[in-house]
Amino acid sequence: MSHKSKGTNAERELIHLFWAAGWASIRVAGSGSTKYPAPDVLAGNNIRRLAIECKSSKKEYVYLYKEEVGQLEEFCNVFGAEPWIGVRFDKQQWYFIPAQDLRDTGKRLRADLELVKEKGVIFDELIGLNL
Amino acid sequence: MSHKSKGTNAERELIHLFWAAGWASIRVAGSGSTKYPAPDVLAGNNIRRLAIECKSSKKEYVYLYKEEVGQLEEFCNVFGAEPWIGVRFDKQQWYFIPAQDLRDTGKRLRADLELVKEKGVIFDELIGLNL
Repeated sequence: MSHKSKGTNAERELIHLFWAAGWASIRVAGSGSTKYPAPDVLAGNNIRRLAIECKSSKKEYVYLYKEEVGQLEEFCNVFGAEPWIGVRFDKQQWYFIPAQDLRDTGKRLRADLELVKEKGVIFDELIGLNL
Repeated sequence: MSHKSKGTNAERELIHLFWAAGWASIRVAGSGSTKYPAPDVLAGNNIRRLAIECKSSKKEYVYLYKEEVGQLEEFCNVFGAEPWIGVRFDKQQWYFIPAQDLRDTGKRLRADLELVKEKGVIFDELIGLNL
């Protein structure tokens, strides 16, 4: 399976999780390829709205470009949504981590399994947060 | 140009209009082909969120299936957004009409140029509404 379709499948899995929990969610078309900032997934429950940049990997770490994260935050500021990084490692559940908790490595930002377990929240916590 | 790519181009034009007006907007991936309800376009300005089902035509009328409109309303109820039908006829600007103002023709709902001019709003009115 290609890297891209693997990412798409992970996003679809997340869409199912939201609807099963009573939240509406959609995947964004052309995320990362249009000239406007956009998350990969948007979810809402009439009270909160979450914009999620999704990363999946067979390894136990993912990297994000700072520009990618900056665009997520810009989208959230204009639209009115919470910015989250969703990380799905093989044989692990989804973890969600705020952008500011990513590890700065210079050009890029890194999230590894240890970091998301320490700083992140799992799905039930993400949707149960009272912000 | 195919019917589908023509529709996609119309949606992209709408995305540009929103960003140019200081609203965030995205096209939804797989709208109409996933098992979950979803609009074609989502837009937000930190205060309001609009979910838009888009129809474009060379003719001066479009039809929508009642199920399509029902799914738009369901999405809006769960996500927290205003449901709108966006209609783009050739050589005309965009018009936006609430679902309940569409003309019932039995199996389907119809919007023609006369109806959208009477009951609809243009883009500047859509984003200027104080609801």
